[in-house]
Amino acid sequence: MKKPVASEQFELGVCYYPEHWPEKMWEDDYRRMREMGFTIVRMGEFAWSIFEPQEGCYEFGLFDRAISLAHSHGLKVVLGTPTATPPAWLTDRYPEVLNVTYEGVTLQHGMRRHYNYSSPKYRELCAAITTQLAEHYSGHPGVVGWQIDNELNCEINVFYSESDHIAFREWLKQKYVTLDQLNEAWGAVFWNQTYSDWSQVFLPRPTPVPKQPNPHQALDEKRFISDNTISFAKVQGDILRAKAPGQWVTTNGLFGHLDSHALTDGLLDFFSYDSYPQFSSISNDAAEVNPLRDRGWGLSLSVVRSISPNFCIMEQQSGPGGWVNRMDMPSPKPGQMRLWTYQSIAHGADMVLYFRWRTATMGNEIYWHGLNDYHNQPNRRLREAAGIGKELAGSGQAIIGSVTEANVAIVRDYDNEWDGEYDVWHGPFMWQSNKEWYKALQHKHIPNDVLYIREQTTLAELARYKVLIYPHPAILSDETAALLGQYVQQGGKLVFGCRTGYKDTRGQCYMRPFPGAARELCGITVEEFTMVKGTRQPTSIQWNGMPDTGADAFNDILHVEEDTVEVMGTYASDYYAGKPAVTRNTRGKGEVWYYGAVFNEEAALNLIEHLGLRSPAAEWLELPAEVELQIRSNADTSFTFLLNYEETPAVIRVAGSKTDLLSGEVITGEYTLEGYGVLILQ
Amino acid sequence: MKKPVASEQFELGVCYYPEHWPEKMWEDDYRRMREMGFTIVRMGEFAWSIFEPQEGCYEFGLFDRAISLAHSHGLKVVLGTPTATPPAWLTDRYPEVLNVTYEGVTLQHGMRRHYNYSSPKYRELCAAITTQLAEHYSGHPGVVGWQIDNELNCEINVFYSESDHIAFREWLKQKYVTLDQLNEAWGAVFWNQTYSDWSQVFLPRPTPVPKQPNPHQALDEKRFISDNTISFAKVQGDILRAKAPGQWVTTNGLFGHLDSHALTDGLLDFFSYDSYPQFSSISNDAAEVNPLRDRGWGLSLSVVRSISPNFCIMEQQSGPGGWVNRMDMPSPKPGQMRLWTYQSIAHGADMVLYFRWRTATMGNEIYWHGLNDYHNQPNRRLREAAGIGKELAGSGQAIIGSVTEANVAIVRDYDNEWDGEYDVWHGPFMWQSNKEWYKALQHKHIPNDVLYIREQTTLAELARYKVLIYPHPAILSDETAALLGQYVQQGGKLVFGCRTGYKDTRGQCYMRPFPGAARELCGITVEEFTMVKGTRQPTSIQWNGMPDTGADAFNDILHVEEDTVEVMGTYASDYYAGKPAVTRNTRGKGEVWYYGAVFNEEAALNLIEHLGLRSPAAEWLELPAEVELQIRSNADTSFTFLLNYEETPAVIRVAGSKTDLLSGEVITGEYTLEGYGVLILQ
Amino acid sequence: MKKPVASEQFELGVCYYPEHWPEKMWEDDYRRMREMGFTIVRMGEFAWSIFEPQEGCYEFGLFDRAISLAHSHGLKVVLGTPTATPPAWLTDRYPEVLNVTYEGVTLQHGMRRHYNYSSPKYRELCAAITTQLAEHYSGHPGVVGWQIDNELNCEINVFYSESDHIAFREWLKQKYVTLDQLNEAWGAVFWNQTYSDWSQVFLPRPTPVPKQPNPHQALDEKRFISDNTISFAKVQGDILRAKAPGQWVTTNGLFGHLDSHALTDGLLDFFSYDSYPQFSSISNDAAEVNPLRDRGWGLSLSVVRSISPNFCIMEQQSGPGGWVNRMDMPSPKPGQMRLWTYQSIAHGADMVLYFRWRTATMGNEIYWHGLNDYHNQPNRRLREAAGIGKELAGSGQAIIGSVTEANVAIVRDYDNEWDGEYDVWHGPFMWQSNKEWYKALQHKHIPNDVLYIREQTTLAELARYKVLIYPHPAILSDETAALLGQYVQQGGKLVFGCRTGYKDTRGQCYMRPFPGAARELCGITVEEFTMVKGTRQPTSIQWNGMPDTGADAFNDILHVEEDTVEVMGTYASDYYAGKPAVTRNTRGKGEVWYYGAVFNEEAALNLIEHLGLRSPAAEWLELPAEVELQIRSNADTSFTFLLNYEETPAVIRVAGSKTDLLSGEVITGEYTLEGYGVLILQ
Repeated sequence: MKKPVASEQFELGVCYYPEHWPEKMWEDDYRRMREMGFTIVRMGEFAWSIFEPQEGCYEFGLFDRAISLAHSHGLKVVLGTPTATPPAWLTDRYPEVLNVTYEGVTLQHGMRRHYNYSSPKYRELCAAITTQLAEHYSGHPGVVGWQIDNELNCEINVFYSESDHIAFREWLKQKYVTLDQLNEAWGAVFWNQTYSDWSQVFLPRPTPVPKQPNPHQALDEKRFISDNTISFAKVQGDILRAKAPGQWVTTNGLFGHLDSHALTDGLLDFFSYDSYPQFSSISNDAAEVNPLRDRGWGLSLSVVRSISPNFCIMEQQSGPGGWVNRMDMPSPKPGQMRLWTYQSIAHGADMVLYFRWRTATMGNEIYWHGLNDYHNQPNRRLREAAGIGKELAGSGQAIIGSVTEANVAIVRDYDNEWDGEYDVWHGPFMWQSNKEWYKALQHKHIPNDVLYIREQTTLAELARYKVLIYPHPAILSDETAALLGQYVQQGGKLVFGCRTGYKDTRGQCYMRPFPGAARELCGITVEEFTMVKGTRQPTSIQWNGMPDTGADAFNDILHVEEDTVEVMGTYASDYYAGKPAVTRNTRGKGEVWYYGAVFNEEAALNLIEHLGLRSPAAEWLELPAEVELQIRSNADTSFTFLLNYEETPAVIRVAGSKTDLLSGEVITGEYTLEGYGVLILQ
Repeated sequence: MKKPVASEQFELGVCYYPEHWPEKMWEDDYRRMREMGFTIVRMGEFAWSIFEPQEGCYEFGLFDRAISLAHSHGLKVVLGTPTATPPAWLTDRYPEVLNVTYEGVTLQHGMRRHYNYSSPKYRELCAAITTQLAEHYSGHPGVVGWQIDNELNCEINVFYSESDHIAFREWLKQKYVTLDQLNEAWGAVFWNQTYSDWSQVFLPRPTPVPKQPNPHQALDEKRFISDNTISFAKVQGDILRAKAPGQWVTTNGLFGHLDSHALTDGLLDFFSYDSYPQFSSISNDAAEVNPLRDRGWGLSLSVVRSISPNFCIMEQQSGPGGWVNRMDMPSPKPGQMRLWTYQSIAHGADMVLYFRWRTATMGNEIYWHGLNDYHNQPNRRLREAAGIGKELAGSGQAIIGSVTEANVAIVRDYDNEWDGEYDVWHGPFMWQSNKEWYKALQHKHIPNDVLYIREQTTLAELARYKVLIYPHPAILSDETAALLGQYVQQGGKLVFGCRTGYKDTRGQCYMRPFPGAARELCGITVEEFTMVKGTRQPTSIQWNGMPDTGADAFNDILHVEEDTVEVMGTYASDYYAGKPAVTRNTRGKGEVWYYGAVFNEEAALNLIEHLGLRSPAAEWLELPAEVELQIRSNADTSFTFLLNYEETPAVIRVAGSKTDLLSGEVITGEYTLEGYGVLILQ
Repeated sequence: MKKPVASEQFELGVCYYPEHWPEKMWEDDYRRMREMGFTIVRMGEFAWSIFEPQEGCYEFGLFDRAISLAHSHGLKVVLGTPTATPPAWLTDRYPEVLNVTYEGVTLQHGMRRHYNYSSPKYRELCAAITTQLAEHYSGHPGVVGWQIDNELNCEINVFYSESDHIAFREWLKQKYVTLDQLNEAWGAVFWNQTYSDWSQVFLPRPTPVPKQPNPHQALDEKRFISDNTISFAKVQGDILRAKAPGQWVTTNGLFGHLDSHALTDGLLDFFSYDSYPQFSSISNDAAEVNPLRDRGWGLSLSVVRSISPNFCIMEQQSGPGGWVNRMDMPSPKPGQMRLWTYQSIAHGADMVLYFRWRTATMGNEIYWHGLNDYHNQPNRRLREAAGIGKELAGSGQAIIGSVTEANVAIVRDYDNEWDGEYDVWHGPFMWQSNKEWYKALQHKHIPNDVLYIREQTTLAELARYKVLIYPHPAILSDETAALLGQYVQQGGKLVFGCRTGYKDTRGQCYMRPFPGAARELCGITVEEFTMVKGTRQPTSIQWNGMPDTGADAFNDILHVEEDTVEVMGTYASDYYAGKPAVTRNTRGKGEVWYYGAVFNEEAALNLIEHLGLRSPAAEWLELPAEVELQIRSNADTSFTFLLNYEETPAVIRVAGSKTDLLSGEVITGEYTLEGYGVLILQ
């Protein structure tokens, strides 16, 4: 069922809205796209009223003409199903399809994504329009693929309509069968929340202190939303598979409360992502919030890659962004748009579409700039995109299908992400540690993957990595711990941080010493612990023969239980001065590390040293910290991507000689990589 | 229809609430008012329940006595229609008259201004009470004028009751006639918002991301609210004109979502304003928010003057203010109350009423201090007011009817104000630039007007000014651009800032190079632009022979298109270093300036120099920056107001000899103006 | 009716939830409790569904077994009535029992305390379960007392269900009898709020500016809530008195909108409090918010003591706290748990129960750590508690029933607390001044009480204190002023701050010179005043022969009216430089001070000197400022508690020789009190 992202050439393209522009402009638009080297356009994802201006009356004329004209210019077309924006007639006639806020306010027509996934009526109407579109366009030679809906769970990812409460209840019945089991799983005996009839069970509802639901219910809520989102998308996916078997199916996004891995495995040929690195420059404290700025987008791209080794960027930033009153951002500087395009490719993209061809002159996104300005005259962004088109036309074929190489993976899982949204005793730590590890690995030029542990994860998947960093898996089942144990036995190195292993998959705490399910793996217990906040003074960690580092945010005070454990760092002060803070347990051919705090870059650098991680190009390449290194390779060859995120040039040094795939230039010895410059060395 | 603000004498007075006090106090109150030189009182505007204790039962006894007694003391009376506070019986019986929040919460009896303007029932009940009042008091010799309602659109200026949705739909039908035209104007094709039936059209309603309506709908919403407010006021205005033709009609306020110019032109004899300069001292960062502090109130007074060349201050601050839990402010220092009174007069007031006679002992405004304290004993504020009464009794007649003189106007318009509430790509810039220009002009002693460009604005109105500053008119019609072109041709100098001219009156972007409708006027295009925020480092502007200035908040990178254009400043750094930032286009006898950023005081000072603006008293008067200069003049004479906003004395120097209207003192050479002191030189 | 807190021994114990744990664990739990010296457990307060799994079906089996087993281990049992958490079946069947927010959102099952006190149905169901419990357990020898509900008014203390509006209306009818009197009391003529029918009267409802009700209505709202809470508790209290006369009755809490004095006088044997001093370490600016940190908890304990001279700590912090997503706090350091236990005792506790035996593994409070960790193994907290148990077993009997000694009281009253919640012109000043006075008194080792002035307060109650500090009683009746006058006449010293005495008990302002009802007492009037905020520069006060101090937040400018008044401080600058800021009026044998600003510690220290206050142990004990001194005494002996709140040791010096009750150690001369150390000297 899976189809490749790109099979003949690297696909470069753009999002296009023929319905927004006078039809007489289309010809010129398509012509210029082709001249710039574009091969693909996306359209249709917000056009339900064009396709079905009244219920049951379908009109394909406008898009028939738009698609055929694109095709005649040699452009492939991706069609979006238009279900992200129901027509006014639909929500007016069937208000039960609307989403409702936690406080009970019904969301109305006027923006987008105001519907719920549970309404049988909405599913019926979505099935109808998808069937019509699939039947009409499945045979069109210009249409190569489909995007289901648009950015599922963007903008809002909670749902409290009556249909949602009912669907949640049904989902719970499937999961727990009996109310007793539900009460047990939700710890309902606490605060007398025990349910005596299914009709008493709802999604979280308003509480005296706002948004303080039962935490186990809150975790199940997110699991339900994810399953419900996938089930909503499946209605369309099944129709597209049945009616349009020759065209591929994807969707775009990476949003909350959605297991994108399950979505992709179950329904899609590959996953797509919308990449806007300039979000990193919006806030005044951006440097603090995201110290890697636009380079930090690579971590999200790594997640996308964990879903689809090769993927599509359905929307690649092509200018300043912003809605009318929010997300307003500076213009990318010359070179940045190109840099970000290659950032996507370096991380695994085989298809990139810019968002969008021409800036909208109306609506909420008039400042979400496309390649063309309102005036439709030549500009810097068009020139930059055309340059990329030209480069990729030359080198694009070589790259497609090649996959990234990494020795280390940052491990995540959905249970902890979802539980950690509510639980501040581990959730914020996870994001902090991911960011700090990513900084350290990037600065050391050690490419990493992200790996989501799921029920179906195999030892083989883990064993591809020498090192796994699993920062704070508060929820850890014994089954997962056993799998990780096998990984270590066969030689893997595994790193945990504080707050590991103390919860079961219901989000209840094990009645065991910390780190709970990871105790045997680590060979230690946690004697005591403390939040480090407020008036509590932080301490630091003294490492054996390495620089001291701060013991951030939370301190587990460790107690060694096994002979195989070596203490690698101790706390420097406070009443637990001298107690173990970092331990290493040798098991089988591998090692398990326990680090008792939230990670910072300095601690990660110490660990990188201890774990023996280094740049895969260390032998032939000297790079300054500000240049990113990524490697894509296939059976034949290996592509070393170098990306300079700074405005100032960076000096690199190549031992021996390499060729830049983009320019064909041969590089030997010292070389100056221009500001925002890119090399793909072979 | 228009009646003058004051015809015989400067009217000084006070707001009075006879219903709040034992009747036995009235006599003493009126006597003391007269002794202090007061000539006028306002009353009745919150007394509906007194006039109509039950529906249809009218009782005028209390106010008959209060008005007659005032009249017998020689005090004129302004009567407020009491429609700002409907009686409890009214909202209880007719809940459809209540306003509703965006989220759907109905506002209830218990504060004030909780009604909507659209309910036919409320209009009917307002018409009834107004008719009764007008019939009863039109012949009363003590009653000289009427205030319609009180502070229209204060506290809340959005309306979402069912009546409002219906009225909006009707307003749209009038404006657009067909749904197609509505869909076109609102760009409804974007995000599939197209309406197929009028019943689907509403005022903005809750959206998944809160308060993110269609921006064109949001602009029409404000226009509707303004028209609806005026139409609500017109019901009363028409009754008062018909029933009480001998009395003048005004209303007080300067609040959002209301075209006060249209309101005044259509319904009023003159406009009134409530002036509370101490609002400038409430917040700890007041110096940052409003660097001119109380002096900055002059900008609002300039707006009032643009509506009525002479006006009434219906509420002049007479002490510390504050509701029970908000707007709490320090007490004015000795002299400040007097200073602020003359600030109002210097800007055009011919009538000033203090708010209020005696501080309320009950209700939300117990800290909104009147002239009298709760204890009703002599105090500093009463002494200060009596002093003003005495001064004005001498000089008041000379001033009335004289109008302010200015060579420069800051230009505004309602479309941009209303669009800019939502659109952060120009709205905040407008307020910032207005503030910075006002600072520069004030510090240079260059009096300015504010001019609202409206459909009916004529060349003659513009041509009264040598210079027009129109900071960031994002919305600019070709008609307005043409009018401005004529202004320049005849010799005017026009200054634009960044973000000029790119939107049409629907708030949609022109498909033209920036500055859109102003392109020909300016002789330039905008090659590129960027927000300056977040991690983006700001640059500065290098001026020809003048100090560098910061290029704040937004940078337009200019491209000169015409020979008539001279580059007056260039960017100092970043990838657009050396590119034009400031240009001057010579057209006809005039000039058009384009300044590519948001204005700051330093840039305004450079431009003031270039534009040849200077103090009209420069030849005979030396003033320190902290003293304000305003000029009012009539056919015979010119009054130069000097206002010292500092607590410390200011040294001024007069060449030749002038007489202070207030003290009769002759001033020659160096003179020390006391802290908070005032002079009116002739 | 009143029973003592403890009669035979100091009761140390713990909160226990048998329903949360496998029954097989109970035996071990009880055994270990006894080994640690515990004598009492609380249980049952969240177990309604266990007792009544379906409406009208009662089951006592689980708690019968749990209580009997506890009893057989020698543990006394306190039973909570379970009405803080209604069962799911109850709120599902009778939704009228639910509380509703101000905005109209109904609070639902899923957290706790989501019910209202007004619903007749809820009162009926609470009466039924309480009757069942009382009948069942009144004869049980293991059950010694009852806790009504749990933390009344915690989490939410406002109520807007339909039942609440109705109950408020009834309460008002009782209070005012006629609508005219209501209108008068609420100053309804202001802003035309006059009511013409009782059906128009509601609790505060949504207003155009949110939460801006009529202030007199807002004050009555709090009085109503307090009365309504007590009336709700009385239903249970009456049943318990009638059915279980041999067992004591208490409840725990100290929450808003509740007159805990009236509650205790009317219904309880003694009051209980839940003490969590680590709340003081949660926020980063904790040092600013609460400069005394955990030591500041003593002020709350002083309030508890004003309700019950001896009291119970029903929940004493036993580890780090926190819900899943809020109130997360660091772990107490070794010794702090013990320190806080003795803090409670030093302030009057005769019974202390730790919260809780074992940390919950499920629900919102999984991070509200009990003595036992999830793993149920020995830990530091258990060891620390066992040590305390051992100490108190030795010394506990000596202490019980002894009461604290203080020469000075900080005076408060409910009217001002409740009015000051809304009124920022006095409410925030009260809290600030209380905090600053408490700091000064603590640092000078002068124990203080808190005294609530109520209708039934007698001269004898006041006369126990040499000095009364009544910082900012804006509301002050002439009756209270007269009582205070008697206090002064007989030799008392009374200190007022700014904003004293200007409101009557309706919250309306007297038509008298400030300080209104306190004018005669103080012998001064307030000539003028000002908020000190925003751009207003603060001034300072020059004292006669004492250091200058800041004149914070508000400045009353005083005018001396009587010969008996001496000016003790004047303002240093601004237009009121040299005017009186602090005065002392000699009346009878006493003094009345008026301090024209909000207190700070420095001013309080000057006043302490003037008032002749000093440490009661000054003659024999030298203490550093960081050590707290409290004294409890009975007919026979006096216990001097010394508590070191710092981690570092403190050096004290004893003249002569004293014995530490806890260790039996004899202390003479210099002694080093360890970090977090405690002494009870005899």
